[in-house]
Amino acid sequence: MTRTVIRGGLVITATEEVEADVLVIDEQVAALATPELGEQWLTDADAVLDASGQYVIPGGVDGHTHMEMPFGGTFSSDTFETGTRAAAWGGTTTIIDFAIQSIGRSAREGLDTWHAKADGRCAVDYGFHLILSDVHDASLRELDGLVAEGVTSFKMFMAYPGVFYSDDGRILRAMQQAAGNGALTMLHAENGIAIDVLVQQALAAGRTDPRQHGAVRHPLLEAEATHRAIQLARVADAPIYVVHVSATEALAEIARARDAGLNVFGETCPQYLFLTVDELARPDFEGAKFVCSTPLRPEEHQRELWRGLRTNDLSVVSTDHCPFCFTPQKELGLGDFSKIPNGMPGVEHRVDLLHQGVVDGRIGRRRWVELASTTPARMFGLHPRKGTIAPGSDADIVIYDPHAEQVLSAETHHMNVDYSAYEGKTITGRVRTVLSRGQVIVDDGHYRGRAGHGRFLPRDTCQYLT
Amino acid sequence: MTRTVIRGGLVITATEEVEADVLVIDEQVAALATPELGEQWLTDADAVLDASGQYVIPGGVDGHTHMEMPFGGTFSSDTFETGTRAAAWGGTTTIIDFAIQSIGRSAREGLDTWHAKADGRCAVDYGFHLILSDVHDASLRELDGLVAEGVTSFKMFMAYPGVFYSDDGRILRAMQQAAGNGALTMLHAENGIAIDVLVQQALAAGRTDPRQHGAVRHPLLEAEATHRAIQLARVADAPIYVVHVSATEALAEIARARDAGLNVFGETCPQYLFLTVDELARPDFEGAKFVCSTPLRPEEHQRELWRGLRTNDLSVVSTDHCPFCFTPQKELGLGDFSKIPNGMPGVEHRVDLLHQGVVDGRIGRRRWVELASTTPARMFGLHPRKGTIAPGSDADIVIYDPHAEQVLSAETHHMNVDYSAYEGKTITGRVRTVLSRGQVIVDDGHYRGRAGHGRFLPRDTCQYLT
Amino acid sequence: MTRTVIRGGLVITATEEVEADVLVIDEQVAALATPELGEQWLTDADAVLDASGQYVIPGGVDGHTHMEMPFGGTFSSDTFETGTRAAAWGGTTTIIDFAIQSIGRSAREGLDTWHAKADGRCAVDYGFHLILSDVHDASLRELDGLVAEGVTSFKMFMAYPGVFYSDDGRILRAMQQAAGNGALTMLHAENGIAIDVLVQQALAAGRTDPRQHGAVRHPLLEAEATHRAIQLARVADAPIYVVHVSATEALAEIARARDAGLNVFGETCPQYLFLTVDELARPDFEGAKFVCSTPLRPEEHQRELWRGLRTNDLSVVSTDHCPFCFTPQKELGLGDFSKIPNGMPGVEHRVDLLHQGVVDGRIGRRRWVELASTTPARMFGLHPRKGTIAPGSDADIVIYDPHAEQVLSAETHHMNVDYSAYEGKTITGRVRTVLSRGQVIVDDGHYRGRAGHGRFLPRDTCQYLT
Amino acid sequence: MTRTVIRGGLVITATEEVEADVLVIDEQVAALATPELGEQWLTDADAVLDASGQYVIPGGVDGHTHMEMPFGGTFSSDTFETGTRAAAWGGTTTIIDFAIQSIGRSAREGLDTWHAKADGRCAVDYGFHLILSDVHDASLRELDGLVAEGVTSFKMFMAYPGVFYSDDGRILRAMQQAAGNGALTMLHAENGIAIDVLVQQALAAGRTDPRQHGAVRHPLLEAEATHRAIQLARVADAPIYVVHVSATEALAEIARARDAGLNVFGETCPQYLFLTVDELARPDFEGAKFVCSTPLRPEEHQRELWRGLRTNDLSVVSTDHCPFCFTPQKELGLGDFSKIPNGMPGVEHRVDLLHQGVVDGRIGRRRWVELASTTPARMFGLHPRKGTIAPGSDADIVIYDPHAEQVLSAETHHMNVDYSAYEGKTITGRVRTVLSRGQVIVDDGHYRGRAGHGRFLPRDTCQYLT
Repeated sequence: MTRTVIRGGLVITATEEVEADVLVIDEQVAALATPELGEQWLTDADAVLDASGQYVIPGGVDGHTHMEMPFGGTFSSDTFETGTRAAAWGGTTTIIDFAIQSIGRSAREGLDTWHAKADGRCAVDYGFHLILSDVHDASLRELDGLVAEGVTSFKMFMAYPGVFYSDDGRILRAMQQAAGNGALTMLHAENGIAIDVLVQQALAAGRTDPRQHGAVRHPLLEAEATHRAIQLARVADAPIYVVHVSATEALAEIARARDAGLNVFGETCPQYLFLTVDELARPDFEGAKFVCSTPLRPEEHQRELWRGLRTNDLSVVSTDHCPFCFTPQKELGLGDFSKIPNGMPGVEHRVDLLHQGVVDGRIGRRRWVELASTTPARMFGLHPRKGTIAPGSDADIVIYDPHAEQVLSAETHHMNVDYSAYEGKTITGRVRTVLSRGQVIVDDGHYRGRAGHGRFLPRDTCQYLT
Repeated sequence: MTRTVIRGGLVITATEEVEADVLVIDEQVAALATPELGEQWLTDADAVLDASGQYVIPGGVDGHTHMEMPFGGTFSSDTFETGTRAAAWGGTTTIIDFAIQSIGRSAREGLDTWHAKADGRCAVDYGFHLILSDVHDASLRELDGLVAEGVTSFKMFMAYPGVFYSDDGRILRAMQQAAGNGALTMLHAENGIAIDVLVQQALAAGRTDPRQHGAVRHPLLEAEATHRAIQLARVADAPIYVVHVSATEALAEIARARDAGLNVFGETCPQYLFLTVDELARPDFEGAKFVCSTPLRPEEHQRELWRGLRTNDLSVVSTDHCPFCFTPQKELGLGDFSKIPNGMPGVEHRVDLLHQGVVDGRIGRRRWVELASTTPARMFGLHPRKGTIAPGSDADIVIYDPHAEQVLSAETHHMNVDYSAYEGKTITGRVRTVLSRGQVIVDDGHYRGRAGHGRFLPRDTCQYLT
Repeated sequence: MTRTVIRGGLVITATEEVEADVLVIDEQVAALATPELGEQWLTDADAVLDASGQYVIPGGVDGHTHMEMPFGGTFSSDTFETGTRAAAWGGTTTIIDFAIQSIGRSAREGLDTWHAKADGRCAVDYGFHLILSDVHDASLRELDGLVAEGVTSFKMFMAYPGVFYSDDGRILRAMQQAAGNGALTMLHAENGIAIDVLVQQALAAGRTDPRQHGAVRHPLLEAEATHRAIQLARVADAPIYVVHVSATEALAEIARARDAGLNVFGETCPQYLFLTVDELARPDFEGAKFVCSTPLRPEEHQRELWRGLRTNDLSVVSTDHCPFCFTPQKELGLGDFSKIPNGMPGVEHRVDLLHQGVVDGRIGRRRWVELASTTPARMFGLHPRKGTIAPGSDADIVIYDPHAEQVLSAETHHMNVDYSAYEGKTITGRVRTVLSRGQVIVDDGHYRGRAGHGRFLPRDTCQYLT
Repeated sequence: MTRTVIRGGLVITATEEVEADVLVIDEQVAALATPELGEQWLTDADAVLDASGQYVIPGGVDGHTHMEMPFGGTFSSDTFETGTRAAAWGGTTTIIDFAIQSIGRSAREGLDTWHAKADGRCAVDYGFHLILSDVHDASLRELDGLVAEGVTSFKMFMAYPGVFYSDDGRILRAMQQAAGNGALTMLHAENGIAIDVLVQQALAAGRTDPRQHGAVRHPLLEAEATHRAIQLARVADAPIYVVHVSATEALAEIARARDAGLNVFGETCPQYLFLTVDELARPDFEGAKFVCSTPLRPEEHQRELWRGLRTNDLSVVSTDHCPFCFTPQKELGLGDFSKIPNGMPGVEHRVDLLHQGVVDGRIGRRRWVELASTTPARMFGLHPRKGTIAPGSDADIVIYDPHAEQVLSAETHHMNVDYSAYEGKTITGRVRTVLSRGQVIVDDGHYRGRAGHGRFLPRDTCQYLT
């Protein structure tokens, strides 16, 4: 039995900010106490972590990553080993990655493949969503079993015809199945059929550079698909979660649905909060570094997204971490923007960038913790094990220095990708110490973790349904 | 030169109600005058039609009919001869029917086929829209030419996969083409892909009777498609016209678009204003008589549709006249509601039913004329030739008795179909005399017209675009 | 019997544009005819007005003027004689002015006073609304009688505490009375109680110049009062007409009410369509020339107001003509913006400025006529006598040259005021000839009318109620 | 030093549900621990409270009570002594009552009066809001000082002309002052001026019974005032809190404001969630028992209020506890409903009735705690001292039996009023033990507290402002 005391910090959870000491025994939080009482713990302690002047927060939960994901003939450049290590560096102690059912294959086979990729390699705990690419009677029947083993959310794409795309009938059927087994249906909401027409027209007109990526993926086509997903969900009486919302107009659809009390949830990502479509115009094809879908939007969308985070029209900030190296991966799209692999790195910087939102007065500290940790944990059935600091919860804890400054850069980051989307950006706030299930895995600039420490997390169903 | 004087009536147009005499010379209206002045015309008159105590209104323009239309292995039961004669009986002096481009065929071929069906057979003037079933580079190129010859509106189906269905990419492309040549894109807005899933589920569960038709064609799936059509139109910067709106939720989407000043127009039909989904539950398979798409809705939708007609969120009332005899046509769907030919008769009763709305206090008299005649004429590029009574306009004029009563019945109607959707319904108001281009074709219960009197109308583009 | 033929023009009404000749006999329109038929009229004609290449439109109806109105210790500078003559010059052949019930006096007394001012002095026909300043049992009882004698609309002020202001209870009572007798309640919708606080704060802080007028009359305080008026009207089940809407946010309230099918109507004025709040910052106190309430707004409001005119969320364009000379009247407010008499001249330029909207592509020609003439005539119970060109209507007709250019200026205008709000502005379009009840009163730059030609118009109730 | 251990319960806070033991030392919570660790506390414990199978929740915070309030010539029937004792029985350990500034008196004087009423008499801790009845320069200047001493919220009435009513100018000025000193402006949002007209009309028409109370206080007049308050707050850039929202239409205004990210908050009360306007029709004048303002509404409003509680459009449930005995107080209104004292008892049943909402599936357990305790504590600047169970927070703790049943009745309740609004209603759930600052004051059906235990709480400003 190992006893660790986190001493003297300000414990911040989704609803509390309290000066308290935390006692960790083995892998769990055993107690929180006033500093006066906590002092009594010091005598028995195996380790004492001094958190004076620091925040003590639950480790981040990144609900949307893509490690080693096949896309357009290549794979995203972080393995589960490199990607989860980078997550740990950034204060994220849980990721939920996407296993993929391929067309013509069973869901089970997809899940097994991803288990094989992750097993024994992860620095932090992990779970899986499943991407459904091929909905039919047999694959639908599989879903109940997957929910039983802790894969409780299924993602479908309204974009990428011919690849991940599901038509409205398949989406409706999967929603119906999920409505029966309690699973959450996640949607990439863009009208891919219409977008592909615009892509072809752009290419035919010789408009081939990365800027076109932003032009063809029209905000209204994100809003349209978002609205459609909501209406299909109403017909199926099923909850949905819309991933990576970037357009004001799409956010408005989610807000309307939520006003009506529907089980509709929205996620956005740091790139939509801090970067704009102008990045796509960088010279020397560097715009390709910023190609992701949904695309970056004009600056005025940022203000609305932050507002949505405040009003809870957007509930979660995930990364959609899906890194591709500029050379040679992004360069696959030289001369044809539609061949640029879609995705950006980010798993390492989410907690810091959201803290920058606190520094900038965009959100409060508790909301920061809620967006980065508590809500994704509850959304994906991991609470109270993850997402909070409470007696009995996993001791996934970050000691965060709110005053330290850092400069983001590919030189210094730990993700396996040759560029940073935020190269040179200065951030106030830095992860100092990270515990995963009671073990210190990052300690003041030193990585103390190991591949295989992280375990698979069977998940309950979404805890927000009403 | 033939001079006809219509004497002593109340001339009602979309904005005026005036006691005036109308002088018709040959095929056109030559003048309107006060009764004092009109008296001078009597001496030269070849004919004087006494309209004392009657309304004198422009002949109806029915913007949505399907004569001799192939559907589900049969044909709608009115030919252009029988259908336009019935129209004349009901005070409608212009129809716009839908020519169909078949899959694998050119638009031209479709149009030619319909010209052949109609030519020499019509009792009243007629125009054509074109249904696009197969959008590709070649068929899109044809459209500019069709606009030039007076076919200025193209309809696409978001329903009926495998038959008329166009996907969002094809719809977007057609809208773009229309945005260039001034044509109006018409849409049957129902999410047919999702509906077909519900159809299959209903059949698989043994729910096969006509009531299922109303259950599977969910109002939200009409609203969804309506919203989608609007967003695609915004991307294409093209005007659209949504046919046969029946669901409150779909109407709300149109209202929002119109509030924003978009060129979005909505049509409804008398069946949605006077009948409800309960009709589908009639015993002995008689519900099949009321199978049309979009389907009849619960009664509460009627109130909103009438409101939409008052607020101009709905601009036009057409019939979607598409009759199938109960025996044997509707009976094709015995044991499988999805095989019931979709469509209802109605071309004869639109003007009367809308007048009943006047009697019931739902709309005013001028709005009656506007909905039944003026707006469709302007919407489809026929004004001022059609849709009004003004110097120079075609003398398509109805003398309408506002006090007469009639009982609708298959026994007495003139449509070639073995049932009436309004069997036994009493209406206040009745067409007394109908002039088409100056000729009396219906006169107090006697048909005086002839097949071939009606001419093809090349149309201008929509006159409402801003 | 005098016969005048207007020959060869394009007759434009709210719904028609037709090449037709107009026969006027004495004071009324006797007939419209095709040019072929019209030619027969020439032989008998006492006068022929050549309208070739010109528009022939119904004379303008200005539903909102204030001649000789007492305000802040002075009187608006146009008398009924000068003001209606200026109206005639500008193609307006009917005005509806506001009689005022003073506090402590009867409504009857107010009306009699205004009759005395106008009788025998007007160049064109005129009616009266009545401003209610003192609602109590006795004054409410008077209203039924006033409706019976043709004063069918009552205006109340939610602004100007201590002067015209009525509190919500008085407004509600008047609305209830109007709901009973069919009258239309007109509202100046600004929260005057809150505005006066801001006025006092501005003055106390030494902010005394005309710009403050725009600052203290906050758009949200117009929107607030508009919303309040609508809710009170719903409680009273009475129709309302909101005068001089200038703020986008107020327009949005009206639009929402109209979407719901309520009898809520909005008016705007040319100054809000063509001028902005920036005018208030003109040096040398010249900003005072542009002080009116509601105030001019920032430019972005203009776009929305034009949209509202297209979508019929705004139904009428009146002038709120209420001129005060810069010297010495506007100068009463030197050093205290709240003492600047509120009002601007405009009765002469409304038809021209709206035609400029046609030239600029903001509205179509028929909508121009509808906004300037037909709708106000129907709104205030004067149709079909006024507001159209139809057999039996008053021969109030303007021959309008759509291609002529003119420059607006105090040098050339006919209003009795020493400045023009549009000094130097070039307009395309000009009134060429004006007939009032069959008499030519303006003819190609010459005034042919006379004081006393214009008659009082007893009005019916509003013709838009549903 | 006294050590109390609460053992074996399910600790529920706004975001956590955790099986934990709670260690209380003297007046505060010292620690929370897993049951394993908590076992070690037992040896030193002065007292152990067994909470097996029970909920352990933070004591309720009732943000809206009126003890000993003068109204209509009488006083609400609970003193601070009887009222806070009843609160304690019901699991509410903090109340915030309303001190009243009388017309013509200073705010200070009002506050002093209420301090005198409460001091030494309360069973639980208490704070004060201040009702502003007389806003002028001097009283506004006082407000900054009151905020400094912990009275950080000011209430104004848009209803009750001649009594508490403030006009829009006074409200605007108070909001501006609050915007400067961080205070929260609370509003009773009903258009009292209009309502009083309807009251007089009802009485004049002989409609005098309690049902009229519901008829004259029209939902639209609540919605109107709510909208007005929001717009005034936008002009003043101040946060507002709307008390006792009961009408769907008012809720919609709040929801719109919150969607826009404004600092607008809504409160409702149990009576609006469980009772309807039909109660006012009870025979023998018993309807008077249910006279409160805003009034009870038709049943359909309840569904929307519950939805608002789920979507956080409504943030707080308070009681507006303001009891008047049926005999003789309510009977003051015999023959004139407007003389019935406005108010209902409720401080004792809020926690239970909201738990019934949990049982009925309306809200979840965490939301129950959030609405009843955490949010009012944060809203009114008492968190983390009140509203949670965390190290360092006041040990205001309720042990709640979720399975016990109780029947509400005037026979058994502890409020000083001769009727229960819920007479005979069965509730699942019951308060078992209540601690106030570490002391057991209610223990399984026995009251162990004392007058004077409760202390005045100086409050910080609202913790929700963004």
